[in-house]
Amino acid sequence: MKKMLVFQTDFTYKEGAVAAMYGVVKSVDSDIEIITATHEIPQYDTWSASYRLYQYIDFWPKGTIFVSVVDPGVGTSRKACVAETENGYYIVTPDNGSLTHVDRYFGIKTVREIDETVNRLHREDNGAVSIFHGRDLFGYCAARLAAGIIDYEHVGPEYDVSEIKRHPIMEPSVTEEGIEGMFEINDPNFGNLWTNIPLTAFLKAGFKMGDMIHTVIYKGADIVFDRKIPYFDSFGKAPDHSVMIYNNEINKMGLAEVIGNLCEDYSLGYGEEYRVVFRHE
Amino acid sequence: MKKMLVFQTDFTYKEGAVAAMYGVVKSVDSDIEIITATHEIPQYDTWSASYRLYQYIDFWPKGTIFVSVVDPGVGTSRKACVAETENGYYIVTPDNGSLTHVDRYFGIKTVREIDETVNRLHREDNGAVSIFHGRDLFGYCAARLAAGIIDYEHVGPEYDVSEIKRHPIMEPSVTEEGIEGMFEINDPNFGNLWTNIPLTAFLKAGFKMGDMIHTVIYKGADIVFDRKIPYFDSFGKAPDHSVMIYNNEINKMGLAEVIGNLCEDYSLGYGEEYRVVFRHE
Amino acid sequence: MKKMLVFQTDFTYKEGAVAAMYGVVKSVDSDIEIITATHEIPQYDTWSASYRLYQYIDFWPKGTIFVSVVDPGVGTSRKACVAETENGYYIVTPDNGSLTHVDRYFGIKTVREIDETVNRLHREDNGAVSIFHGRDLFGYCAARLAAGIIDYEHVGPEYDVSEIKRHPIMEPSVTEEGIEGMFEINDPNFGNLWTNIPLTAFLKAGFKMGDMIHTVIYKGADIVFDRKIPYFDSFGKAPDHSVMIYNNEINKMGLAEVIGNLCEDYSLGYGEEYRVVFRHE
Repeated sequence: MKKMLVFQTDFTYKEGAVAAMYGVVKSVDSDIEIITATHEIPQYDTWSASYRLYQYIDFWPKGTIFVSVVDPGVGTSRKACVAETENGYYIVTPDNGSLTHVDRYFGIKTVREIDETVNRLHREDNGAVSIFHGRDLFGYCAARLAAGIIDYEHVGPEYDVSEIKRHPIMEPSVTEEGIEGMFEINDPNFGNLWTNIPLTAFLKAGFKMGDMIHTVIYKGADIVFDRKIPYFDSFGKAPDHSVMIYNNEINKMGLAEVIGNLCEDYSLGYGEEYRVVFRHE
Repeated sequence: MKKMLVFQTDFTYKEGAVAAMYGVVKSVDSDIEIITATHEIPQYDTWSASYRLYQYIDFWPKGTIFVSVVDPGVGTSRKACVAETENGYYIVTPDNGSLTHVDRYFGIKTVREIDETVNRLHREDNGAVSIFHGRDLFGYCAARLAAGIIDYEHVGPEYDVSEIKRHPIMEPSVTEEGIEGMFEINDPNFGNLWTNIPLTAFLKAGFKMGDMIHTVIYKGADIVFDRKIPYFDSFGKAPDHSVMIYNNEINKMGLAEVIGNLCEDYSLGYGEEYRVVFRHE
Repeated sequence: MKKMLVFQTDFTYKEGAVAAMYGVVKSVDSDIEIITATHEIPQYDTWSASYRLYQYIDFWPKGTIFVSVVDPGVGTSRKACVAETENGYYIVTPDNGSLTHVDRYFGIKTVREIDETVNRLHREDNGAVSIFHGRDLFGYCAARLAAGIIDYEHVGPEYDVSEIKRHPIMEPSVTEEGIEGMFEINDPNFGNLWTNIPLTAFLKAGFKMGDMIHTVIYKGADIVFDRKIPYFDSFGKAPDHSVMIYNNEINKMGLAEVIGNLCEDYSLGYGEEYRVVFRHE
């Protein structure tokens, strides 16, 4: 396969960090093709980093190497690692929760801690040690791997996959009353919220297109939304500014405010503190 | 020529849609070079999608394949198509008005509806049909075309170019009083407005550099701007915050507020409802 | 080395300018790989353009050609040039201050004015001369250089490096009281400010990790900040919203407001009018 690296970070393009990191990659091997997944992960949001990897990873060719740098713990004891996934990819990332969803939905087969004595860029003019790990550690190590200078075994010592840091995920569950799960992520362009409840489970629980479904949203112990809303296959079927349930692009249930922003207008978010329940009555 | 695809969408980089779409392209053929024209077309704005294609398309090598996904009608009966242009390019796009300007200024030679039975990605794990056409239909079909897996004839059945959906464009016209046209687009960074009146027609109508020109702007039937303003070749020649006429980068007449934002400060926009008249007196 | 060009501009992706410029490059030679450093340099800010080049340039392979288009003076008499740097790179740019930092920190070896009769794109359908130099002049000339159609000697006539336009930089200096310098740039994502005082000089002046350091900031003749603040190696060591000194990713001293935005909350900026003094007492 072509030598290539796919990057996601929270750096933005507002300063020179992306360009410096990409330069290091090209200095290792100018044949490596650099592909930008995004540099707009919300700042320090390792949950989003984790979710986005899961959203797109398995659309890529087997063997693709991903570099994810959302790293609030740079300079702390969090490990810098390369994970090998069960479905055949490599992810170069701080081990800080960024592997949560890929581990949960596809599985991590093995993981290795990057050996900084070998796979970190040390420049002569650096009197002191820089802490820009995206450039000097993750980008550099990934480039060596993509270039074939090292293979996976030479990233550094393997450690047990059970040690990988994971964010808690509340699994969806069917109850007598209906089905419940969590908000895994939002669609930042429209303010829609995506649950972790698969369409198949939702249908199996007995819900049908066109149903009015009693929907309760908890934030911690508080009920922050409690209303009957329809399940439709098209936003055009519900009135403007009404809230509806739909099947999203990865076949899980989503909630949307038609021609509106559900997150903003109802002060809702995603992550472990949100629980959503669809009830039969 | 090198295998390559040029993408424009309204997806933004705020979530994983671009990365999933690009992954599908690389899975079809990892040798395809992916070039980002922009992912910041205003949401659902097929007029802007159409204009931007027209603005840059003929600076690319003949044979280049463009993918434009601004698709408010996803899930409706709008066709998914590949258009062959008179000037030698291919555009993979929903047929929803996104071809308006290229058709008007360069011409569409032929158009084919994408055969979804062949040129759409169907994944095993998709119990239900996903509606992310950017990834599964436009990106996938374009990649097959760029890779040479299919040629243009195998995109799907040809249909008549007269059936292509077009937004109405008011042609510029010379009158006894002067010349009139419409605002085709804005410059979002500065708030300037670009008319569809060519410099050549403007000069032929008798206007000259330095003239004070009676300029009237209609929004529907209402006059929303009525003033004598100068035609200059440099923003430095007019006082700050004054409005002036200039020749833009594609040699059509533009209006600008010097060190200001014309669109915002005068509540002006672009599209079919705006008409601009330059009068001799 | 692979044919490639690295671009930075203030165009944004909000309109079609980037795509038109990249199309010209590919029309010259479709084998040229195009890499986006950033298109989000603050509008017209040649100081930032200069700083960003300096921040990332020497992480790239020797021989890399950079194109920087931040060009408030387009249409004026500012020169369009290609500079050859002492450390082995080429920069295609308007000569408007964008070479300041690379010249200061790495050195410019030679510079040539682009010969527009040869190295500017003239299209048949251009009745009038377009003023989009990013596309027709800088992008086009850089592509010819990257493709090997011309070599550096054929860019145009050489002129003396002393004629290059430079922004004034106040050099850091050690005094009896401590050390002083300027704010060179900010970190736009967090509002931190970066001085031009190297860590080595700072340490040599006698400051140590953990010290409370009397810090005075001048804007012109006015004192706009005057306070004792700590020098730490981690943001976690200072209370939220407190201001601290740290060593940044290029080993110069920076100032940050912990979990806050120093630029905004203290109305501070960067550039020649700001002076910062670290005093022993």
